[in-house]
Amino acid sequence: RKPQFRLRASMIEKEVPAAERPATFLRGIDEGPSNSPDSVRGRFERMIREAQDSVCAAIEAADGGARFKEDVWSRPGGGGGISRVLQDGAVWEKAGVNVSVVYGVMPPEAYRAANPSQNGNVKPGPVPFFAAGISSVLHPKNPFAPTLHFNYRYFETDAPKDAPGAPRQWWFGGGTDLTPAYIFEEDVKHFHQVQKNTCDKFNSDFYPRFKKWCDDYFYIKHRGERRGLGGIFFDDLNSYDQDMLLSFATECANSVIPAYLPIIEKRKDTPFTDKHKAWQQLRRGRYVEFNLVYDRGTTFGLKTGGRIESILVSLPLTARWEYDHQPEEGSEEWKLLDACINPKEWL
Amino acid sequence: RKPQFRLRASMIEKEVPAAERPATFLRGIDEGPSNSPDSVRGRFERMIREAQDSVCAAIEAADGGARFKEDVWSRPGGGGGISRVLQDGAVWEKAGVNVSVVYGVMPPEAYRAANPSQNGNVKPGPVPFFAAGISSVLHPKNPFAPTLHFNYRYFETDAPKDAPGAPRQWWFGGGTDLTPAYIFEEDVKHFHQVQKNTCDKFNSDFYPRFKKWCDDYFYIKHRGERRGLGGIFFDDLNSYDQDMLLSFATECANSVIPAYLPIIEKRKDTPFTDKHKAWQQLRRGRYVEFNLVYDRGTTFGLKTGGRIESILVSLPLTARWEYDHQPEEGSEEWKLLDACINPKEWL
Repeated sequence: RKPQFRLRASMIEKEVPAAERPATFLRGIDEGPSNSPDSVRGRFERMIREAQDSVCAAIEAADGGARFKEDVWSRPGGGGGISRVLQDGAVWEKAGVNVSVVYGVMPPEAYRAANPSQNGNVKPGPVPFFAAGISSVLHPKNPFAPTLHFNYRYFETDAPKDAPGAPRQWWFGGGTDLTPAYIFEEDVKHFHQVQKNTCDKFNSDFYPRFKKWCDDYFYIKHRGERRGLGGIFFDDLNSYDQDMLLSFATECANSVIPAYLPIIEKRKDTPFTDKHKAWQQLRRGRYVEFNLVYDRGTTFGLKTGGRIESILVSLPLTARWEYDHQPEEGSEEWKLLDACINPKEWL
Repeated sequence: RKPQFRLRASMIEKEVPAAERPATFLRGIDEGPSNSPDSVRGRFERMIREAQDSVCAAIEAADGGARFKEDVWSRPGGGGGISRVLQDGAVWEKAGVNVSVVYGVMPPEAYRAANPSQNGNVKPGPVPFFAAGISSVLHPKNPFAPTLHFNYRYFETDAPKDAPGAPRQWWFGGGTDLTPAYIFEEDVKHFHQVQKNTCDKFNSDFYPRFKKWCDDYFYIKHRGERRGLGGIFFDDLNSYDQDMLLSFATECANSVIPAYLPIIEKRKDTPFTDKHKAWQQLRRGRYVEFNLVYDRGTTFGLKTGGRIESILVSLPLTARWEYDHQPEEGSEEWKLLDACINPKEWL
């Protein structure tokens, strides 16, 4: 799935801090109708910014004390982002919710790879692209309260100028997934049920397909285990109506809080011991391994010169690596590890 | 420098635990004189195993309580290793000292890359290789006591069977480097002076050249900063007499304890605050970023199926990531960061 693009995209401009949030990060419509407020770009940007506001408001309310710190940044040639981070709260030790809009240029191989049947004989030049997305990782303090990650993104390429007839491309990607250190079956079921309900509103194939995609994607190959207990994940999705996929991404983003907060409310004050905390920290170490070694967004961002603090806000506040740690067979720690090695059907 | 090889080497066999240390991990001499005890392979293996014994004995004595746990493993087709880890000691929170011997096969591109002038016109098949090395990372508890890393390795390829006249290759690599969270100039000077003294016994060019190579290698590109305060590093070294380079690697390994332990003795009991500890943990986070994203040995090992627990023993017991942490200008934390961004001449 277009790994070439992800690994070989051109460098993007250095970002600069901005004093306040602009109404839009899109370039002006004098650069083409695809930047108009009614375009998919414009509607997607509004969606992710509204989702950022509503998720941050819900997290602040549930945390009951700490506030998100906001950084706004932009790039001279267009695009920018809003990073919001809550650190050392009552419930979350680190919670990041970022939106960004990027105008960049991808190498032509990537464009061919995206649609080999239609332009296998042409040699287009570099292809300008547009990408917008929301990305969030929420790490609670309590070892019985799970980490949540979600990310929804929209991608467009221009039609390459020197390849007449070669089409413009667009696709959606994203997902929401849960990473507990301990399994409460009712929590995992609830989380997956919300994902399924959202998927089922659009296509009954979506949940089984995107659930498996999620299990396959969040795989720490060198460990032979997944980062967590999954959820849904999809990428390069363009074989459905564009408006339908925009609605689907919107509903997915709106499902984050109902899927996650009831679990947090139940687990945030559960008493725990040092042993529980150490196991959570070991699992956080696995989170770091996945994100730095395998995650496409992270490795792409590090290689192309994205805003480092926004990219790495996904890393936990603290993590731990013990040599050759093996949970005792049958223990609660072992059950979590088993479910990460052998993904289960929760519904 | 042969990145192709490091990223594209074939998978190696799965290791199996062994009940006790064998006299040698080399294949029998019936597989060729290069496996004899007097060969460079045999002498290098003895050297790294003696260095492992002496470093572990010195660390245990200085720690004053904790002992190394040993795991011996081997591969059915030849080769194996000894991993030793001391965890939660009085002085070190995690100390790993590993030796390994690997027989593998590298893709032909790598071999051509190693010597383009002599076999640019031949298309050799996969090239068997031999690699042996010692690798160690020592993470102390006290934030004023620095982390030390060293690694010395020897590499050989067979002459490719289907490329008549193409030569056999060999090279040495390695280095010793210091990663403090706080700078004590006398400590850094002492450390670098020992490296220079060792280098100067062999070639007056070695220290300046390998000091710069070290600063260049341990570079966290996405941060624009180095992992620590350097030392020496070299790779692909074969333009000197083989016996001389074996002696040089031996002296380097023997210099580890005199370069490092006097610093530990001075700093291990220095009183510290939570603020000092948090800064040490942030720098440990940078250590994790370098090792998982850039370190050749780590990324090579993860991709090729090396023994994961041995490879990742280099990661600290605990690490920390704070969003957008900026030390106050002029502070002790800022001075360390400045020296990581702008490498200094310490002698």
